[in-house]
Amino acid sequence: MSDIETVLPQLRFNMDGLIPVIAQDANTKEVLMLAWMNLQALQQTVATGRATYWSRSRGELWRKGDTSGHQQFVQDISYDCDGDTILLTVQQLGAACHNGTRSCFETGKITVQAASRQPAAADGTEESAEND
Amino acid sequence: MSDIETVLPQLRFNMDGLIPVIAQDANTKEVLMLAWMNLQALQQTVATGRATYWSRSRGELWRKGDTSGHQQFVQDISYDCDGDTILLTVQQLGAACHNGTRSCFETGKITVQAASRQPAAADGTEESAEND
Repeated sequence: MSDIETVLPQLRFNMDGLIPVIAQDANTKEVLMLAWMNLQALQQTVATGRATYWSRSRGELWRKGDTSGHQQFVQDISYDCDGDTILLTVQQLGAACHNGTRSCFETGKITVQAASRQPAAADGTEESAEND
Repeated sequence: MSDIETVLPQLRFNMDGLIPVIAQDANTKEVLMLAWMNLQALQQTVATGRATYWSRSRGELWRKGDTSGHQQFVQDISYDCDGDTILLTVQQLGAACHNGTRSCFETGKITVQAASRQPAAADGTEESAEND
């Protein structure tokens, strides 16, 4: 666990000053949504324990649940190996999605044409030093 | 479940022609990584059942595991309510992360200063028509 000030140099915000944030239900492990944070949103999330995002459509900070009551209480904050994605595990009150579903990913499904599954030996390391 | 051609008009690729993709372990529900797809990567993923991304650092298609052996066999593909994020549930061989850890989110942790948790009535709907 690191203090946010220690971590900041390792985080990579994009050209718009934003970083993608995945919110995962702490209990069910369901992926609830993806939203974006700027630095201020991250700082407020860390300081308050309430998930706070940057609304790209409204151009303002957006503390999840302030209008809907569907707050997210943050249990853990992780960032990935190249520092350009954040993962929150949250206690979600009610529906995470503005459509009223628990998760934003419940309704849209794409058929996988070839559902392959091939057990194979897994060793070696990825060629690139970056995942993307 | 919808055919990809039916779904395409609902998907929103960004200015670079990319869409963020969350990969979640189908068994453990662990969030493994976030990467990006362009249209071709998505089409190949759908057609082959092997997670295929767009490598932003290398500027090329990147079929996960071709160099490392750590393939991702796609079980389900979902997209979110506003069509700008994809969620894959995958059978992950070996480590998803090029650092050798199962997930890219294992090592980076930020301390939440106020771990709040406040049970409250949850009703109403989000004010905005968009989640971000």
